[in-house]
Amino acid sequence: MAFMAGDDVLLDRELFLFDVRASRAHAEGLRNIGVVSDDECAALCKELNQLARDFAASDFVLDERFEDGHSAIEAHLTDTLGEVGKKIHTGRSRNDQVLVATRLYLVDALQALRTTCLDSARAFIDQAEGDPNTPMPGYTHLQHAVVSSTGHWFAGYAEAFLDNAQLAGQTIDWVNSNPLGTAAGYGVNLPLDRHHTTHALGFNRLQLNPMYAQNSRGKFELQMLTALAQALMDLRRFAWDVSLFCTPEFGFVTLPDRFTTGSSIMPNKRNPDLIELLRASYGVVHGAMAELQSILSLPGAYHRDLQFTKGPVLRAVSHGLTALTLLPDVASAMRFKAQRMRAAIEPEMFATDLALKRAAEGIPFRDAYRGALSDPEALAAMNPADSIEARVSAGAPGNLMLEVLRQRLDDLTGA
Amino acid sequence: MAFMAGDDVLLDRELFLFDVRASRAHAEGLRNIGVVSDDECAALCKELNQLARDFAASDFVLDERFEDGHSAIEAHLTDTLGEVGKKIHTGRSRNDQVLVATRLYLVDALQALRTTCLDSARAFIDQAEGDPNTPMPGYTHLQHAVVSSTGHWFAGYAEAFLDNAQLAGQTIDWVNSNPLGTAAGYGVNLPLDRHHTTHALGFNRLQLNPMYAQNSRGKFELQMLTALAQALMDLRRFAWDVSLFCTPEFGFVTLPDRFTTGSSIMPNKRNPDLIELLRASYGVVHGAMAELQSILSLPGAYHRDLQFTKGPVLRAVSHGLTALTLLPDVASAMRFKAQRMRAAIEPEMFATDLALKRAAEGIPFRDAYRGALSDPEALAAMNPADSIEARVSAGAPGNLMLEVLRQRLDDLTGA
Amino acid sequence: MAFMAGDDVLLDRELFLFDVRASRAHAEGLRNIGVVSDDECAALCKELNQLARDFAASDFVLDERFEDGHSAIEAHLTDTLGEVGKKIHTGRSRNDQVLVATRLYLVDALQALRTTCLDSARAFIDQAEGDPNTPMPGYTHLQHAVVSSTGHWFAGYAEAFLDNAQLAGQTIDWVNSNPLGTAAGYGVNLPLDRHHTTHALGFNRLQLNPMYAQNSRGKFELQMLTALAQALMDLRRFAWDVSLFCTPEFGFVTLPDRFTTGSSIMPNKRNPDLIELLRASYGVVHGAMAELQSILSLPGAYHRDLQFTKGPVLRAVSHGLTALTLLPDVASAMRFKAQRMRAAIEPEMFATDLALKRAAEGIPFRDAYRGALSDPEALAAMNPADSIEARVSAGAPGNLMLEVLRQRLDDLTGA
Amino acid sequence: MAFMAGDDVLLDRELFLFDVRASRAHAEGLRNIGVVSDDECAALCKELNQLARDFAASDFVLDERFEDGHSAIEAHLTDTLGEVGKKIHTGRSRNDQVLVATRLYLVDALQALRTTCLDSARAFIDQAEGDPNTPMPGYTHLQHAVVSSTGHWFAGYAEAFLDNAQLAGQTIDWVNSNPLGTAAGYGVNLPLDRHHTTHALGFNRLQLNPMYAQNSRGKFELQMLTALAQALMDLRRFAWDVSLFCTPEFGFVTLPDRFTTGSSIMPNKRNPDLIELLRASYGVVHGAMAELQSILSLPGAYHRDLQFTKGPVLRAVSHGLTALTLLPDVASAMRFKAQRMRAAIEPEMFATDLALKRAAEGIPFRDAYRGALSDPEALAAMNPADSIEARVSAGAPGNLMLEVLRQRLDDLTGA
Repeated sequence: MAFMAGDDVLLDRELFLFDVRASRAHAEGLRNIGVVSDDECAALCKELNQLARDFAASDFVLDERFEDGHSAIEAHLTDTLGEVGKKIHTGRSRNDQVLVATRLYLVDALQALRTTCLDSARAFIDQAEGDPNTPMPGYTHLQHAVVSSTGHWFAGYAEAFLDNAQLAGQTIDWVNSNPLGTAAGYGVNLPLDRHHTTHALGFNRLQLNPMYAQNSRGKFELQMLTALAQALMDLRRFAWDVSLFCTPEFGFVTLPDRFTTGSSIMPNKRNPDLIELLRASYGVVHGAMAELQSILSLPGAYHRDLQFTKGPVLRAVSHGLTALTLLPDVASAMRFKAQRMRAAIEPEMFATDLALKRAAEGIPFRDAYRGALSDPEALAAMNPADSIEARVSAGAPGNLMLEVLRQRLDDLTGA
Repeated sequence: MAFMAGDDVLLDRELFLFDVRASRAHAEGLRNIGVVSDDECAALCKELNQLARDFAASDFVLDERFEDGHSAIEAHLTDTLGEVGKKIHTGRSRNDQVLVATRLYLVDALQALRTTCLDSARAFIDQAEGDPNTPMPGYTHLQHAVVSSTGHWFAGYAEAFLDNAQLAGQTIDWVNSNPLGTAAGYGVNLPLDRHHTTHALGFNRLQLNPMYAQNSRGKFELQMLTALAQALMDLRRFAWDVSLFCTPEFGFVTLPDRFTTGSSIMPNKRNPDLIELLRASYGVVHGAMAELQSILSLPGAYHRDLQFTKGPVLRAVSHGLTALTLLPDVASAMRFKAQRMRAAIEPEMFATDLALKRAAEGIPFRDAYRGALSDPEALAAMNPADSIEARVSAGAPGNLMLEVLRQRLDDLTGA
Repeated sequence: MAFMAGDDVLLDRELFLFDVRASRAHAEGLRNIGVVSDDECAALCKELNQLARDFAASDFVLDERFEDGHSAIEAHLTDTLGEVGKKIHTGRSRNDQVLVATRLYLVDALQALRTTCLDSARAFIDQAEGDPNTPMPGYTHLQHAVVSSTGHWFAGYAEAFLDNAQLAGQTIDWVNSNPLGTAAGYGVNLPLDRHHTTHALGFNRLQLNPMYAQNSRGKFELQMLTALAQALMDLRRFAWDVSLFCTPEFGFVTLPDRFTTGSSIMPNKRNPDLIELLRASYGVVHGAMAELQSILSLPGAYHRDLQFTKGPVLRAVSHGLTALTLLPDVASAMRFKAQRMRAAIEPEMFATDLALKRAAEGIPFRDAYRGALSDPEALAAMNPADSIEARVSAGAPGNLMLEVLRQRLDDLTGA
Repeated sequence: MAFMAGDDVLLDRELFLFDVRASRAHAEGLRNIGVVSDDECAALCKELNQLARDFAASDFVLDERFEDGHSAIEAHLTDTLGEVGKKIHTGRSRNDQVLVATRLYLVDALQALRTTCLDSARAFIDQAEGDPNTPMPGYTHLQHAVVSSTGHWFAGYAEAFLDNAQLAGQTIDWVNSNPLGTAAGYGVNLPLDRHHTTHALGFNRLQLNPMYAQNSRGKFELQMLTALAQALMDLRRFAWDVSLFCTPEFGFVTLPDRFTTGSSIMPNKRNPDLIELLRASYGVVHGAMAELQSILSLPGAYHRDLQFTKGPVLRAVSHGLTALTLLPDVASAMRFKAQRMRAAIEPEMFATDLALKRAAEGIPFRDAYRGALSDPEALAAMNPADSIEARVSAGAPGNLMLEVLRQRLDDLTGA
């Protein structure tokens, strides 16, 4: 029995307020079709509002006394309202009840994701504007390639998080459909007012077919996790960069002490633990996605297997959003060390600039390419500031076009 | 050396025409900024057009003579045009060359995905309209639940594939940005006409930051695979259903002989092999996603590891789209067996209807629920057709609202 | 800070007793090389023993007062023993402390896995012996193939779990090496008595190289999860079979009521929820493995990312072992329904037997194969009992050789 | 049809010789029970031997003329031997035919894995013996920790690959069971001589139950991939280290030119491409494992889905073994740069040594730990050679115990 109950009732704490909200809309829908009276509906809604307040204030605790959050609501209404309470479950099943609560949760999580992505983009744009042109080595294969700049590095992550915010927004549009009123996957013999619940709960469309409502369990969750994972993958790349830049060998970046810790055996250590934990956070969401993908190999309609989709989704969202929420502070607080980076730039890093300059003057690129390294004097005469200034292709270090990123940020923030 | 080359040149066959197209746009962009003359540009474009035709006609074969498709184009232009050919690579790197070809490929694949999802939705709507009300058992936990209908089952998959088509469309919007002109991740010292190439290649926006262009390698691929996987997950669920419905024990569905095969040892077998291969196809894309997710744990900028993102992407797209393209035919050709399904419906399946009917008449649902099974006479008096007709909540078997699905199909098709 | 602490201290409750045990061995090792005196060692061991008892009795609670379980031990010894307590961490790091506690935990989990696999194998062999020859349809592609038997079906799972038990045993051999005494990955300037700790903790070999000890974090965990996953994959297959056999359409199996539940909306339902949750349990371990595989993409030596390997390992072991522990009871309590299965066997299922019989009489198999179905009279004259009896190849329904499985069970149990 | 055939016949080229070998053993088994005569058996074996030679010499090409490799063998024997050829398939199914060929392939792949792991271990031990004591910084969190040595670093990978070789050997023991003679999962009505085929094919035990033989499809494949993945995970860690050590900022390692390549746009680049491709190779196997794990969510017995297990297994083995086979050469050819590493060691890296030295002299470790950094003069008086020499715990830089690794290598090589 313990195995069957699982930790459902604990997990449902995350879903409870959404469930209460959907129950209210359901009561109103039942009133609209005459299944409950105006007074009964008012009583149900009043009691649900109180329940929400009590839950928020920890006066109502969702614990092992209940099978899950869904039956806790009905039990509570029956306890407090008697016969009227028994009517709340008319025309709905735990199946659409959990679907609608989860769907509202997904939308909420995606909005939080979108906001934190915009916050990160803002932090990166601010840094790029504040320190646009400090030269740093640009790498490919972790080998020195050409001169880059701090502004160029920051702007890259800014654009990444703008894309991630846009993806979160698109994903909201896609998942934001109403499964309430589909019961256990076959609808009911009542003319449920599904348009009312759709409107009242802020969904942008009806999920029409009850069988599909069941079949989409896990499907929308996976898409939400994908949007989350995209942001975490950029966070991982960012953390990798910072981790390398913090090594004594690179020595390009300093972090505030609050992001580092010591060692239990080595007195000399200051370790960038937070950066490493941010880097590892992608794995949590990757694991949750694999867990869902594995569980979802099923025929259509409801199966109890689907209960196990809750745990990984809640775990991944909680962990993933926490990690992402830390990023704006880290992005704002990190500092590049100009001297160390300047010292790492050697003349050979200008060879590409030189080859292209000669190509622009009419020498075929392949010939210019071959000639560049054999002219050490020309290379020695070049410097990082000129290299950055001359790199004028759209978005390049000499032409960051930060105003375009800022405008896109404003557009997405306003949207 | 063989390990380093991998099978790049073979994989690049899929990307070659996109690469040629992007090379043409790049040549025009170089003309716009005076790096090549009008005549040189015309010569390059003419030769590229000819190369595309030769490739399509198998007169030009991309094989082990070349390191990869990207260098093959430059080599060909240098062979045929001499000095002019050497200019094609001015201001670009293999890095942005492969990025732009891959991006065009992703958009193309997503368009094919969108089309095949709409085709499947159409086949399912047609079936639902043609056979809306044949009763069949509705299941939860693979146990008999309530009466369902063929139309309800078909409509569920129709709506799933409409969602999938919408997702493919949204994903096109997201990935459809132009990385050409970002070189190896740091831009170049030339005022490349990136707006021209964006427009000429049909992108809806510039991918501005060169570092981000590199960092997004694999990111957009993963999002495309996610859209593909969503459709394949519904296909898997469909195949599971059909596989069960084809067992002798269920016996609900017949398939045309062309979808089945025999056995090497058992003379009596007709096996639904195609259905099983469709079911297994999700795994191919799941595996490719895991492969990418694993490879992409890297610091920013280019690393050779990223070469290995090509294989899984091309493999998953090829396999996934092929599987999905077979679905409309399967969906249209399958036939439900009304008698077998009717025989499987026993009176207890009306108990939920009865409980809800009484709840609608004023008995609290929980009491009605408890009373329904103890009234076998009332259950025996009910029948599947009435049960379906009475199930009138929006989308339910008695109110399929197929016109809403048809309208959405038309809207998406026209879009 | 909360993010950095994570839920380490809660997770460490699972590791705490192993950590105490390893600390005791470490204290003895320090005594052997004269770093602590005999009396100091005795005091440390006595206090550690008391701590273990207090923890087991919940008199010592590992909670947020401590950073993690590892520092809690040292803090406790320092509190109670003053200067002597401060000596316990001499020559070790939290790095090898967590490694050794985890290694002991892995061995313990594998022993539990081995035991539960043997229990399952025993339950299946018992069932096969008790009900060896009841005919049932044999399937391929979920289509009727040839006649099978209950004993054959049970024996198949018996052998699977014997293999799984053997794998768990082999995996113990592989992971059972001692990392204690490697400190933070570079050893220490003390002649630690690593042979003593290896012996005292029951390891079968020294993990020699300190760098490798760090690099193997997650490696041994993954191998343990693999052994666990293999057993869960067979459990998944078993649950799939039972789930199908429990459908009304198959109707081959009945389960005791304690394994089923009802529905919140449908009064007529008895659902095999437990079976479905067992089926879904593989996903939990699959997800945990993916999480580890993702996190472990790191250079050598310790990184804080590795902290996140704890959560998925503990979660997967706890869930997976619980699921597997339920299997022997399910396997013993399920009952096959002979009549329903007999009714499902039609004469065509004898065609393969007939073809082979004729092949044995000298007709080339391919010709016999083609002729079998065109002889309905011969097929009608055959029956399931004869078909089973004649299937005499080793392991086949007519020659189950259960004594071989029983012998292997005994050998593995005794080992 | 093309979708159903897939690329089976091409994949089967890898399995063909194993299939021929198993067919020969099957023919002998049929002779032993009188199904074919001595002469017929001799004719079949002679023809099979010839077929193997022709295949090896490319005189027999397995291509699209055949459905798969399995039917190609029967077709060939029937073509060349007429009636006798038709007898080869007596008592077997394509199901056990593919199982046995795959099982032989797995054992062969594991033997190759075992050998290459031993070769790598040997290369690492040789390097450690040749250059045991060159000081290098030891890291945790990619920050300087304590002094390490080249020998310590090499020995760590040596021990890892010894463990990997042992795991490959254990896995051979586990998978090395004979499925031939189980037909389509239900055995046959012939007293097949399964003991002969087990012995003739070198298996160490019979896979007894035919149902289990089917159910284990993919199970043994996954275990083999796990052993492969473990080796590739250590290869990934090695490649990460080398990749960092090759950066200009670290500058610790040089690679021969044959392992590096240039850039299409940047004339100054020499990139460690091979190292990066080795690092990415884990992903190929991870993806293949995920693909199998996804496909294998099925009820018992054969389903066509299982056909799709072939592709990922063959792909992962081919790629993974190729990557691993390159490691001994890379390990032998890399060179550490002593001066660069010495320059990176600063006095603070001796603080742990100093604290422990004082702890050994009787100061409680926690006090010694706190005091070490506040004694810069003592730290300045220390040097790397002394630090290494004093680090005498078993396996540590001052006590590498390479002879133990060498002995284990010899034991495993001889085994």
